[in-house]
Amino acid sequence: MAATRDRIVGASAELFRRQGYSATGVKQIVTEAQAPFGSLYHFFPGGKEQLGAEAIRTSGATYELLIGSVFGPASDPVTGVRDFFAGAAEHLVETGYEDACPIATVALEVSSASEVLREACADVFESWIAAGTAMYEVSGLSRERARELTIAMVAALEGAFVLARALRSTEPLQMAGEVVAQAVERALA
Amino acid sequence: MAATRDRIVGASAELFRRQGYSATGVKQIVTEAQAPFGSLYHFFPGGKEQLGAEAIRTSGATYELLIGSVFGPASDPVTGVRDFFAGAAEHLVETGYEDACPIATVALEVSSASEVLREACADVFESWIAAGTAMYEVSGLSRERARELTIAMVAALEGAFVLARALRSTEPLQMAGEVVAQAVERALA
Repeated sequence: MAATRDRIVGASAELFRRQGYSATGVKQIVTEAQAPFGSLYHFFPGGKEQLGAEAIRTSGATYELLIGSVFGPASDPVTGVRDFFAGAAEHLVETGYEDACPIATVALEVSSASEVLREACADVFESWIAAGTAMYEVSGLSRERARELTIAMVAALEGAFVLARALRSTEPLQMAGEVVAQAVERALA
Repeated sequence: MAATRDRIVGASAELFRRQGYSATGVKQIVTEAQAPFGSLYHFFPGGKEQLGAEAIRTSGATYELLIGSVFGPASDPVTGVRDFFAGAAEHLVETGYEDACPIATVALEVSSASEVLREACADVFESWIAAGTAMYEVSGLSRERARELTIAMVAALEGAFVLARALRSTEPLQMAGEVVAQAVERALA
């Protein structure tokens, strides 16, 4: 079993993904984490907001690795985009349309309410954009074009998750992924 | 001053847009709506969930009109897409990055928690997709291609809002809009 602190962070990230930040209470977090109530404030004296920021940053780092692992084995960046969106669609179906992005829900809820949490979300998105930009630069695109395509790709993915979860359909992931794949194909041509 | 019922629905929609469904309490709604507390349960015996579904559907219908008004005056659908994303970016800046989409936050928060609210979000997205599809069909695209592009466009917009609000930048709206505009351009060529 992971250390108590890690279980608290992991449980928070999972609850945020499924139901968002506001609906997640500290009691629910410690219950899911099988942690004593006091341990939350022991590890996070700043309470839910401090824990939230850490859960966002930790999930963000994990998902950033996922980007690399999906793009790595693909024969080319265009196939990589298609594989990436197809993998996201498959995972969404397997988890009953629950497990999409751990950051997006929180980003929408808190961006106008908590600077601490907004900055954590912004840092994660910036790190994903930097990772994707570097990847496309390796394929021969200019930094500017690489950044543009990465931002469009992350936006398409996040928005496709919004539609897919509400519609209970993977169609948005297919359609959004295809538009991005074709944009990458043209940029590389 | 609008009728009490309309003020309650309007205040709910605005609070959902800014901070989401879970963080919005019925007390805050009646305060913002300048309505007596009891009037909420008088008009919405099903409480917050029933009111939430109505606020989602009402906002959805308003925003659907907006799609038409933006696309109507544009000289062609490609310019229409660029104008649409540019207008969304401008509005976001004007409102301090608060006023993006009234549906997306709720859709992510409730899709795994409330079927009533998930269905309201799904109905709104379906109606936007139907409206956009019809618009592109008029431009000469097949229904299938028109639907595909519309879904990609709505996904790109929703995801760009997620990034833009967290990053406090309109760059994601420009990048995502450009990728969609180019996809529409190619489809029409």
